Amino acid sequence: VRFTAEVTSDGVHERQFEHDVAGRGVPGVLWTPTGAAGPRPLLLIGHGASGSKREGYVVSLARRVVRHRGFAAAAIDGPVHGDRRADKGAVAGLPFLEFSQLWAGEKSMTDAMVGDWRSTLDALQGLDEIGAGPAGYWGLSMGTILGLPFVAAEPRITAAVLGLMGLTGPTRARIGADAARITCAVLFLVQHHDELFSYDRALELFEAIGSEDKSLHVNPGRHGAVPVEEFEFSERFVSRHLGG
Amino acid sequence: VRFTAEVTSDGVHERQFEHDVAGRGVPGVLWTPTGAAGPRPLLLIGHGASGSKREGYVVSLARRVVRHRGFAAAAIDGPVHGDRRADKGAVAGLPFLEFSQLWAGEKSMTDAMVGDWRSTLDALQGLDEIGAGPAGYWGLSMGTILGLPFVAAEPRITAAVLGLMGLTGPTRARIGADAARITCAVLFLVQHHDELFSYDRALELFEAIGSEDKSLHVNPGRHGAVPVEEFEFSERFVSRHLGG
Repeated sequence: VRFTAEVTSDGVHERQFEHDVAGRGVPGVLWTPTGAAGPRPLLLIGHGASGSKREGYVVSLARRVVRHRGFAAAAIDGPVHGDRRADKGAVAGLPFLEFSQLWAGEKSMTDAMVGDWRSTLDALQGLDEIGAGPAGYWGLSMGTILGLPFVAAEPRITAAVLGLMGLTGPTRARIGADAARITCAVLFLVQHHDELFSYDRALELFEAIGSEDKSLHVNPGRHGAVPVEEFEFSERFVSRHLGG
Repeated sequence: VRFTAEVTSDGVHERQFEHDVAGRGVPGVLWTPTGAAGPRPLLLIGHGASGSKREGYVVSLARRVVRHRGFAAAAIDGPVHGDRRADKGAVAGLPFLEFSQLWAGEKSMTDAMVGDWRSTLDALQGLDEIGAGPAGYWGLSMGTILGLPFVAAEPRITAAVLGLMGLTGPTRARIGADAARITCAVLFLVQHHDELFSYDRALELFEAIGSEDKSLHVNPGRHGAVPVEEFEFSERFVSRHLGG
């Protein structure tokens, strides 16, 4: 990884990076405790459609695990999102539309994102302040569409928070097959009145996950209304499974 | 209520009581912070079949909310359980069998238990150290079979943790009707591999609950394997809804 900017506040050292994967630049952010040295658990965070690596809940969760648990955390922009766009200040809704079109015509978007995450994990674990410690993944909605296949492919991920997604959509068959291959501890989050992915399809995806240790949390409200308690619980969940 | 014994340890004042309801004695335990004065939230805890008001998880949850939140907590023995039995040291399994038979021949067991809880709530809220503050209910399995109708009947209950139970059994119709009448905040706990109440019937009961603010937590394992995180979460849930 090539660090391009950094800032420190309230005990958190935040570094923006660019990482080259097969000729494409993957933009990311790494959060570590100030003055961190030696190995520590790493939480990878995948944002939802329309968001970016600097989305509020991404930054908030990253800072939680850094400040409260001494972890490292990292996020990268998803396809057609954030700094992967030529028009970095994209028209609101444009990334979501473009992502939906890419998803509908799915050929290689998922494979590319799995590759980006794996290569980013390799690179970050090469840093002295992270090392080959345990790693977890947190990503909802598009963060599950593209992150669930990554979790299925990556044995270094020992705990994952997934959800806001059902056994539906253009990559339904692949998502179902990948879900069955997952063996790590999983917390799956569902919004009872999700207008994008129905409750029943979400329960199907939870069922499809192969892990013995999997839990489901259903909360009231629409797609975007995940309550703050789930971010608190996510912190405790990854801490319990990754140590620290 | 008539207090019959008391003990104090680690900041918790525990008093055993007997409360007369329509000529029958209801045996209970009340936990309050040492030296408590003035009103505070009250958590009522219903134990499962084969258990009692002094079951480990009942005492543990009660002490949690007293020590960490300054709440009061109370438990009463269910029908044919604990000090309601002539043979107080009952043969293991006997209360469960007798409860099952009573449930199968259900005429008034549920109504009697609802009456016992309501009268106990009246009496406890008459104490200076509790008063007419907010009240919650926590009870799984038999604690839901008999406690869900109480929660439905009692507007003073503003938050309830229920679960380990499905839309099934001899009182299925009543449970379904009562569930639809519930309006308070509900956390519903399900064990994915519950051998007593199937996952599908449990999801049906969650659906039947009328509350807008209801959440579901599913964890792996059998009926008795509720993980400790749910007791920690229960504490936060009742604290959030009852204040403190």
